[in-house]
Amino acid sequence: MVISASITQNILMYGVALGGCLVASEALKRLKQSEVIGQVLVGIILGPSLIGILYPNEIFNFIAELGALTLLLIAGLETDVRMVLKSGIPAILLAFGGVFFTIILVFPIVYLFSSNIFLSLYVSVTLGATSISLTVRVFSEFGKLKGKEIQTIIISAVLDDLIVIFLLIFVIDLSLTGSFQLAKILNILVSVLIFFSIVFVLLFFSIKFLNQHIHRLKSRGGILVFVFTLGLLLGYFSSTMGFSPIIGAYFAGLILGDLDIKDEILEEVSPVAFLTVPIFLVNIGLKVHLYTISTAIFIGLLLSTAAIIGKVLSGFPVGKLQKTDLRASILLGAARIPRAEVVLVFANIGLELNIIHDVWYSALVVVMITTTFLTPIILRYLLIGGEEK
Amino acid sequence: MVISASITQNILMYGVALGGCLVASEALKRLKQSEVIGQVLVGIILGPSLIGILYPNEIFNFIAELGALTLLLIAGLETDVRMVLKSGIPAILLAFGGVFFTIILVFPIVYLFSSNIFLSLYVSVTLGATSISLTVRVFSEFGKLKGKEIQTIIISAVLDDLIVIFLLIFVIDLSLTGSFQLAKILNILVSVLIFFSIVFVLLFFSIKFLNQHIHRLKSRGGILVFVFTLGLLLGYFSSTMGFSPIIGAYFAGLILGDLDIKDEILEEVSPVAFLTVPIFLVNIGLKVHLYTISTAIFIGLLLSTAAIIGKVLSGFPVGKLQKTDLRASILLGAARIPRAEVVLVFANIGLELNIIHDVWYSALVVVMITTTFLTPIILRYLLIGGEEK
Repeated sequence: MVISASITQNILMYGVALGGCLVASEALKRLKQSEVIGQVLVGIILGPSLIGILYPNEIFNFIAELGALTLLLIAGLETDVRMVLKSGIPAILLAFGGVFFTIILVFPIVYLFSSNIFLSLYVSVTLGATSISLTVRVFSEFGKLKGKEIQTIIISAVLDDLIVIFLLIFVIDLSLTGSFQLAKILNILVSVLIFFSIVFVLLFFSIKFLNQHIHRLKSRGGILVFVFTLGLLLGYFSSTMGFSPIIGAYFAGLILGDLDIKDEILEEVSPVAFLTVPIFLVNIGLKVHLYTISTAIFIGLLLSTAAIIGKVLSGFPVGKLQKTDLRASILLGAARIPRAEVVLVFANIGLELNIIHDVWYSALVVVMITTTFLTPIILRYLLIGGEEK
Repeated sequence: MVISASITQNILMYGVALGGCLVASEALKRLKQSEVIGQVLVGIILGPSLIGILYPNEIFNFIAELGALTLLLIAGLETDVRMVLKSGIPAILLAFGGVFFTIILVFPIVYLFSSNIFLSLYVSVTLGATSISLTVRVFSEFGKLKGKEIQTIIISAVLDDLIVIFLLIFVIDLSLTGSFQLAKILNILVSVLIFFSIVFVLLFFSIKFLNQHIHRLKSRGGILVFVFTLGLLLGYFSSTMGFSPIIGAYFAGLILGDLDIKDEILEEVSPVAFLTVPIFLVNIGLKVHLYTISTAIFIGLLLSTAAIIGKVLSGFPVGKLQKTDLRASILLGAARIPRAEVVLVFANIGLELNIIHDVWYSALVVVMITTTFLTPIILRYLLIGGEEK
């Protein structure tokens, strides 16, 4: 029973990639390191640069995109819009500070090496984002997930990403048109406004309706199918408005996250994430070209330093405002050092659009590796320091 | 943020297909009909023959193949090998009878219309398979799932499929080489033997090991990733031995179904099935060409009649052996009338290999629709009749 070679070949690649990720995750879990690093490394090792058993193709790209959509859908599900609105000044200040300082510090480094203003804007804005899951895991080890500190940190991390998404929309348009045109910018502003109005109208008017009627879905798996239908269609809608599909998936998550059955939804979406997100991460690794790696490591380490300092600095104004001690101020910033999934999503988009190229893509992967490696060490030091006092 | 058109186009198609399936499933659930019919109809209606918003492509074919793999993985998980071995004579007799009578009745009809011996063999063997899930659902409505009757029926349905798979391996090879060569048949027998020996060695030696050690997987989703890695790699292995990948996935399910954590595995695999199996069914509909439909309906109704009589006949010898009444004998056969998912999997393979063509493919879809439509009606009549006595 011969099935087309393309399909069996992709079945093999999918199996090998998942198997490799499983081995890597188990190893890194035991070393108390982030699984994200391991899965990107699996892509680098098994990819074209080294062993060559895996290579990027249309099907792998699609599963990876489903992984990114699922990741952002879950991020949306886990965001509490009301809490973001309530958390107020400290979180907002923290977020704007973190993005601002990161751009200020990263932009000159990229410009020094590339003399490309659009590339510099893209890389520096991208590094403004925060991957909060690692921080949440470290805080939960210390049983500190209910504190006010971590709530402010989580909300500001969400705002970090929101600000970065807004800024990137403009940066991408600038990069593609190559100039600052007022009409063009107004044009984008209008589509942004239309998109967000539609999404927010959906958000506020659909939740009550959905809460009352979603239980009427009786077919097996009906709720999960509904969730993905909404995620995919909003994803497609956002792509027709000029955004990435992941933005639509994030807003689908925001809408669904306000439902009573949110936890049930999260439980059913997770298995899908387990099987698609690793492919998203492996696919990142497949695109890292090792012949650029020595330059990428050098630039990546410089960028990492700037990215770490940028976020740490953002803690001081808020610390001063809240009259906390030095340790607490540093903690507010340091908790937002990790640049993992979200930065990789943006790096991928930049690569796809030819705004960033090989070396810079690899350098962003290096930043991902160094920041996720250093964060648990720094946070444990700060949290233990806090307990000893 | 423009993503490649191919990816956004496929995101749209995936969302539309899932949304259509959700609407169809909800409607058919309320009409107490099988969801399988609805999802194939969604493919016919939205596909190239009518509306044309969906069309088969490489990515859709791959998700459909993942759906088929997941379906057979679940079938394997739900098969209790020990019960099959214990159930003994009645189930075995029932299974061989069902396949034998179906082939005897279907073969002449196909040969009459096609004068093609390989096509006739392929279609008649394919219709020997049984899709038991619909029967299980009807029995559960009547609270009769614990009875001895249904156990015998389920086990013989599993054996039906096993016999059909074995026979198809030979039929496919005959069709591809076009002749009966002894050396060739010995060759297949050897690869079948090697494949099943390896799988059974894996089966018997790995279960104890897995039961002891699978709990040591600590990464999030580790068990699910392990399950799919095994399913995909055994699927690829079976394709290198000349079988369809789904055979390997079925045996992966058999191995994993013997683990203590079988229920936990089923719970995590289900969401993946909810999102991939509908695409498998829609994809079937996409390949039905409406210009052949009037011929296909005519032939399909003839085949359905033969396929129904074939299975019903198989109940009588067993009824005689067990000295049951007429109603019980008919029930044993009638419970195995449905030809849905499994028949469609084989129809797809036949299409892919150019053994069956448009009209016959569509005719098999017609058999699927008539048998799944008639089964609940026939079974309810027989079960209510049994209760009234």
